[in-house]
Amino acid sequence: MALNRDEGDCPMMRRCLELAQRARGQTAPNPMVGAVVVKDGQIVGEGFHPQAGQPHAEVFALREAGDRAAGATVYVNLEPCSHFGRTPPCADALIAAGVARVVVGMVDPNPQVAGRGLEKLRAAGIAVTVGVEEAACQALNEPFVYRMTHQKPLGILKYAMTLDGKIATTTGHSAWVTSPASRQLVHDLRAGCDAVVVGGNTVRRDNPLLTSHGQGHNPLRVVMSRHLDLPADAKLWQTDETPTVVFTETGANPDVQQHLQKLGVEVVEQAELTPAAVMANLYTRGAMAVLWECGGTLAARAIADGSIQKVLAFIAPKIIGGAAAPSPVGDLGLTLMTEAIALERVQWRAIGPDLLIEGYLQR
Amino acid sequence: MALNRDEGDCPMMRRCLELAQRARGQTAPNPMVGAVVVKDGQIVGEGFHPQAGQPHAEVFALREAGDRAAGATVYVNLEPCSHFGRTPPCADALIAAGVARVVVGMVDPNPQVAGRGLEKLRAAGIAVTVGVEEAACQALNEPFVYRMTHQKPLGILKYAMTLDGKIATTTGHSAWVTSPASRQLVHDLRAGCDAVVVGGNTVRRDNPLLTSHGQGHNPLRVVMSRHLDLPADAKLWQTDETPTVVFTETGANPDVQQHLQKLGVEVVEQAELTPAAVMANLYTRGAMAVLWECGGTLAARAIADGSIQKVLAFIAPKIIGGAAAPSPVGDLGLTLMTEAIALERVQWRAIGPDLLIEGYLQR
Repeated sequence: MALNRDEGDCPMMRRCLELAQRARGQTAPNPMVGAVVVKDGQIVGEGFHPQAGQPHAEVFALREAGDRAAGATVYVNLEPCSHFGRTPPCADALIAAGVARVVVGMVDPNPQVAGRGLEKLRAAGIAVTVGVEEAACQALNEPFVYRMTHQKPLGILKYAMTLDGKIATTTGHSAWVTSPASRQLVHDLRAGCDAVVVGGNTVRRDNPLLTSHGQGHNPLRVVMSRHLDLPADAKLWQTDETPTVVFTETGANPDVQQHLQKLGVEVVEQAELTPAAVMANLYTRGAMAVLWECGGTLAARAIADGSIQKVLAFIAPKIIGGAAAPSPVGDLGLTLMTEAIALERVQWRAIGPDLLIEGYLQR
Repeated sequence: MALNRDEGDCPMMRRCLELAQRARGQTAPNPMVGAVVVKDGQIVGEGFHPQAGQPHAEVFALREAGDRAAGATVYVNLEPCSHFGRTPPCADALIAAGVARVVVGMVDPNPQVAGRGLEKLRAAGIAVTVGVEEAACQALNEPFVYRMTHQKPLGILKYAMTLDGKIATTTGHSAWVTSPASRQLVHDLRAGCDAVVVGGNTVRRDNPLLTSHGQGHNPLRVVMSRHLDLPADAKLWQTDETPTVVFTETGANPDVQQHLQKLGVEVVEQAELTPAAVMANLYTRGAMAVLWECGGTLAARAIADGSIQKVLAFIAPKIIGGAAAPSPVGDLGLTLMTEAIALERVQWRAIGPDLLIEGYLQR
């Protein structure tokens, strides 16, 4: 795929990725895209896609470049679109601007595009290079690609446990398992996600805020509670900064429903409250990345019904003990160790004194 | 401390460490020591301490060097002894051999030596250099140093858990949590330890062999069982290859005691069966490094009574789930996460697909 590569392509593509991330967490259901227009070795236009409904990255970059786009090279981390969505096709805009060459990070997995953007450009006589910094481009938009290819959001289970596998003490106390550095990374993770999910237990025990703590975009905060046995006051019911939605079962506790709605909390009733049903609802809202920060019981249900693809395990180098102290994953119905769900593509890194292990559930 | 260093000192000291390790696991209560005699840039004598009661490393090295020891440099990873133990002082032997220089890895923590060996050599006009490759020398004989300075063996807790903190499934099935590479490393760890301890539960559930599986010295196999409710047949009762000792409380189950003794298993009755009491007994047997491969209940008791200093946690990248599935450490009576026992000097490394996290319990 990589034809006519140029030494300068990689730095320009990395610049696209930088630009793209300016809208991190804000583009759903669209991908993060950045574009750079280069003429005679100089950047003459830059842009990124700020959010759904707004113009695509290429449009901003071409706008800044103006007449200098003619004969220029345009870099963009995702294939330019070829179809009319909320905005006209970017491939047409590139052709109209008279660019000489387009360098693309990765093909758009959107079946409405999927190579047609590239074809259109080539048919117009534009030189096209595909696959520059492709791994980084794929990683940046992993949730978008997953959503597009699986018709559901990417589910990420995050938990923090001690070296002896506990997420809290026997009394449920959990502040804090990990270091400030790890907790700050979690805030940053949230900034890159579209929704974060907890169960009623977590609301009752930890009363979490679940925001990015000023580190960027705030995800939609989601609570799953079958019986709505939730506290009247909770940080999650303060919706001035960012909204909260509570999923419950049809007809559950009308008084609490009314109370929550008065506080500005959206309540969604489902016939059967399952992680997959919640993910389906979040999909219709455009969510691409959903972070599960729930306790072990809900985590097990989410794993079991296919709502989790990726695991982020923070491990703190400390021992708390407790046979009855909670662990990160509840019952999966597995009785033999050989039935364990393996993780693949496992990576780890130090986060302050803690260790972060990442991997994908093997299915 | 490091006077008159020479560029060639480090490689020669590393050679001492190699030689020393030929007796890995076999020297208790003595340290592992290797010695090299170098004359005119050539190694003319090598030796190591094979086991307690046998000559020290320097003696073998000097013996091989013969007359060439006169004017030579002798390398040894631990300070030569200055006292009459089961063998005469090595410092005297070095002086008698007329060596010109002695290079020592570390001072002997034995209060009967503790610098006196070095003094003796210096008083005899021998040039002495101390502290070459000291960290490696200290690491090699860590259990010896711990035993000598604390009058008890070094306790090492080893466990293997899934990424969700489980050492077995809800039914107790645990074969296998980790990869063959990790299990082989455990066999190798055993070869470097003087004893390995499990509780009755582990014998009943896992029926382990607890040997080094041919990778070297076999540790003394130790079972702690208060009521001696142990199976009549178990791999640990086969004592042809290596012995087993069962610790129990005074008067427990005489029939089982008799049965075990008939099979060649030593039974030790203690007034109160505690990890510390077992460690005290193992100390009198000369043990320096004791590996605890027990379940969570016994591990918690051993941590609580100060029998564990070091933790080796193997983490397999898999999820098994199970609220009631056992975790590596039972009740420590800690109710707040802030009370957790921190690990210090934490290191980790990949062992096949698994991760091994090592650290020392902060006291």
